[in-house]
Amino acid sequence: MTDHPDRTAADAVLETLLAWDIRRVFICPGSTEAAFLDATLRHPGFEVVLTTHESVAVAMADGYTRATGEPAVAYLHTHLGLANGLAHLDAARLAHSPVVVLTGLKPSTIQAHGGFTTLPSTGDLARPFVKCAWQSPTADTILEDLTQALRLATAEPSGPVWLGLNQDLMDAPCTTPVPPPARHRVTARAAPDPDRLKAVAELLSQARTPVIVAGAETGRHRATADVLALAERIGAAVCHEDRTGFERSVVPTDHPRFAGSYAPGNPAVAGSDLLLFLGCRCFVEFETGRPAAVPPGAALVQTHTDPAELARVQGVDEALVGDESLIARGLLALLPERPAAAARPAPAAGTAPSQPAPPPRGGGATHALEALEEGRPATVAEVAAALAEVVDSRTTVVEDATTSEVALLGALPQTSPHSFLTSSSGSLGWGLGAALGYQLGAPDRRVVAVLGDGVFQFGPQALWVAARYRIPVTFVVINNGSYAAVAAALRRYGGLAERTGDYPGKDISGVDIAAVAHGFGLDARRLHDPAEIPAAVRQLAGRPALIEILTDPDDLGPAR
Amino acid sequence: MTDHPDRTAADAVLETLLAWDIRRVFICPGSTEAAFLDATLRHPGFEVVLTTHESVAVAMADGYTRATGEPAVAYLHTHLGLANGLAHLDAARLAHSPVVVLTGLKPSTIQAHGGFTTLPSTGDLARPFVKCAWQSPTADTILEDLTQALRLATAEPSGPVWLGLNQDLMDAPCTTPVPPPARHRVTARAAPDPDRLKAVAELLSQARTPVIVAGAETGRHRATADVLALAERIGAAVCHEDRTGFERSVVPTDHPRFAGSYAPGNPAVAGSDLLLFLGCRCFVEFETGRPAAVPPGAALVQTHTDPAELARVQGVDEALVGDESLIARGLLALLPERPAAAARPAPAAGTAPSQPAPPPRGGGATHALEALEEGRPATVAEVAAALAEVVDSRTTVVEDATTSEVALLGALPQTSPHSFLTSSSGSLGWGLGAALGYQLGAPDRRVVAVLGDGVFQFGPQALWVAARYRIPVTFVVINNGSYAAVAAALRRYGGLAERTGDYPGKDISGVDIAAVAHGFGLDARRLHDPAEIPAAVRQLAGRPALIEILTDPDDLGPAR
Repeated sequence: MTDHPDRTAADAVLETLLAWDIRRVFICPGSTEAAFLDATLRHPGFEVVLTTHESVAVAMADGYTRATGEPAVAYLHTHLGLANGLAHLDAARLAHSPVVVLTGLKPSTIQAHGGFTTLPSTGDLARPFVKCAWQSPTADTILEDLTQALRLATAEPSGPVWLGLNQDLMDAPCTTPVPPPARHRVTARAAPDPDRLKAVAELLSQARTPVIVAGAETGRHRATADVLALAERIGAAVCHEDRTGFERSVVPTDHPRFAGSYAPGNPAVAGSDLLLFLGCRCFVEFETGRPAAVPPGAALVQTHTDPAELARVQGVDEALVGDESLIARGLLALLPERPAAAARPAPAAGTAPSQPAPPPRGGGATHALEALEEGRPATVAEVAAALAEVVDSRTTVVEDATTSEVALLGALPQTSPHSFLTSSSGSLGWGLGAALGYQLGAPDRRVVAVLGDGVFQFGPQALWVAARYRIPVTFVVINNGSYAAVAAALRRYGGLAERTGDYPGKDISGVDIAAVAHGFGLDARRLHDPAEIPAAVRQLAGRPALIEILTDPDDLGPAR
Repeated sequence: MTDHPDRTAADAVLETLLAWDIRRVFICPGSTEAAFLDATLRHPGFEVVLTTHESVAVAMADGYTRATGEPAVAYLHTHLGLANGLAHLDAARLAHSPVVVLTGLKPSTIQAHGGFTTLPSTGDLARPFVKCAWQSPTADTILEDLTQALRLATAEPSGPVWLGLNQDLMDAPCTTPVPPPARHRVTARAAPDPDRLKAVAELLSQARTPVIVAGAETGRHRATADVLALAERIGAAVCHEDRTGFERSVVPTDHPRFAGSYAPGNPAVAGSDLLLFLGCRCFVEFETGRPAAVPPGAALVQTHTDPAELARVQGVDEALVGDESLIARGLLALLPERPAAAARPAPAAGTAPSQPAPPPRGGGATHALEALEEGRPATVAEVAAALAEVVDSRTTVVEDATTSEVALLGALPQTSPHSFLTSSSGSLGWGLGAALGYQLGAPDRRVVAVLGDGVFQFGPQALWVAARYRIPVTFVVINNGSYAAVAAALRRYGGLAERTGDYPGKDISGVDIAAVAHGFGLDARRLHDPAEIPAAVRQLAGRPALIEILTDPDDLGPAR
């Protein structure tokens, strides 16, 4: 046994994490992580969750923090591992997830030499995706640096932070004490400027048909009850954020005031004279000329914890920085009960065109059976309807299914901010790791990950983690053998592909996804009939499993 | 059909590629590639090689250019696709592969707005890995920009270049003509400074025991014949580059002057009074205190096409910028035939300790059979010996097997620069895509990709490409169920893990790799006995196939 110091910086990193009540890391290690891995043997309460690709580690950390609301740590190996984790780190950035990405780097002495797996500017890779990125300069400062990383990640507006840990420093003795988390963890929750809040209350009191758009941040901050209380008080319909910026359900979809996804064509929106965007990005444009628009003449109010989000694309009449609960409560205090407003009827459910009315329970499966008898392949709508039969209030759907999203959002009941999660990043494959992380963070939930087949190919390694740790996520892969988003873009382009029906880059068929999942150790089934989905989902509860459902390659749905 | 211009910038991109005789791109598309994909329908001579993950597209382009010596193009989607391709782009960087990475970006108008899948600083992500990175500013300049990218990528020292293509510009009309490739493609091959060449010749003429180290660049420039002529003239032993910097075989391993891999303990090296590093990186340190060293008192000469590589870590007595063939020929012209030197005996084959003597042909398989009868699992050495039985001069081995590399390098015959390829980048999973790209670029070769099981999990999506295009690569996966490099690092660390035999982060067992490959559409077999490998390799010729061979989880080999 080599003569190691009694307490290395690696030990101190573990002590710091434990002091912050962080008891697991999501890791994809290499040689630079030896001191850390060795130190975990001296801290049996600490769990190393091993992954076999960095993209999985990052998405798991993101999913974990979305479940717990607590910071989560992904630990990667060198600039190469960081590079592999960047795309899903972008998902964490957009969701304001407090993910600390630690990266083991080669020894300080060889980084500028072009040593094996070195890149002196590694921090630059992380920088666009994080609040701050730096390398710890000495063994004795690593504790302070990690404390800073955790502090920054959790302080509102929260978000990812990157810290580089040089191998030689992690091996070295560290004598400094762990900075007390209680004195460094500050949520930095902000209440709005009272003058501006009064101005917003004044606007609301004058509005005849106000609509509240409850954004992703409202869900992250668990502000649903306060938002609904405000809606009742002012007699407002409540929408979810525009789909391109949507991250999670916030308002129960069966609530009488729920009026579907925000879209200019949604009747509730179209008839509104005031839109209150609570914790929303306004807006996330997909292409030029395709932003979500606002009804002419409507007053616009936007709030966000991140001042940089305010009036980013869409100009506003009033803007508030602050926490959505504090804003809603502040407005409630300023706005008296108004019998007239309270009597204002809630919108009729299912009338919003952007939120298709779900078919009657069981109807989807019946419909699918008819389809099979007719010999035609299943549609995404049938899959969504079948899933709706088994999604209850204990279920969390993690969705990463690109062009199937609209059908799923319309069909699946969403009763809480834990009901439906997705990413607005467009980083394919995020859903596999995110579902696993979410399940670990919320062991009492039934997590169902709904994926496209193209998405599946971006992260099959996640299945190894599911099998290894017996994480009871049910993966449902809608396999149309197509990059439907590519075909949709070619249709929109309206060129030769649309005219000839020959879509280059669309056909990704040929994978037996159930067989791949079986190879990774999962209980896996290939279904042709959506009517079989509910029983399969029920039967596969309690263990890692995958259901592949084959759908019509020409049922491509809308592109984002 | 939408009213599109007769010639879009996308058309012009294709015209430019075809003018450069580039007839395929390796793509992982999204909506931003619609105009380009549509344009390919108007250019039937052009092939879009579809991949289902960007890492595969980049590695394929790298493998393709390593086979052909011509530039290759990977086409990715937004900053997310670029991020997913970065780790293997690092492999292309270190191998000086002229890979042009095109990336379709969202329309110009929404990039700074935080639009969907935008990152205004996308070029910054590519910058550390490429010679130059920029976004084309207008539709009419795209031709010039692509010409620049190809010019820069191919000019020595060659290497990757990144070009961002905004969606709105690709859709727009382009009227500028294609700049003539013949007037822009310049190899920029350099001959060395004659004065410095004379000084090197003088050193060589005084040397009693010169050793030539033929580096990766010597292989890329196809300079083997010139290097061997120089070796014969001066009576030098010839080594391959130090393993940490090794990219490809250069000198036939059965050549009488071949003396194994460069290492200070190699007897040919230890007894040398002059080391001539031709096109080598000197050196690539793995950890502090673990660089390749040089024998005390030996004169050191290094050459490279990239001036930045000269004397990077190891100080030298003479340094030459220039092409290895021109240097070798220049030295031959300056050094007269020396009967005494020519009579100097070539080193005895197999004496170099860094290059283990291969077992007798057939011996490995026999040995393995004995092992199975004894009930012990197969070793990597047995697998290497079994592979050696079926590796002939038509075979290209693409190796991405981390800790198995030493055994493979020692056992497998390498008769030309096309015999054995690997990456010095440490970017796991590179070998899957690289083997496919190499096979497409060299259809007459029999390509065998030898991978570790951890490596396999970094790129299983490559198998889809193999199946889709019927690329007849044989993947051989050495499955020890372990991150052997992690275990080796923990052994070197010499802490609690080594003492207890409990290696956190080592166990990645549980994948039935043959089953996964079968799910992706490959003919796949799981073997327990290395003796079955030769017959399986022979039987699986001519079609995409995978052989999984289970080996001893405790036969971990040395770490890099």
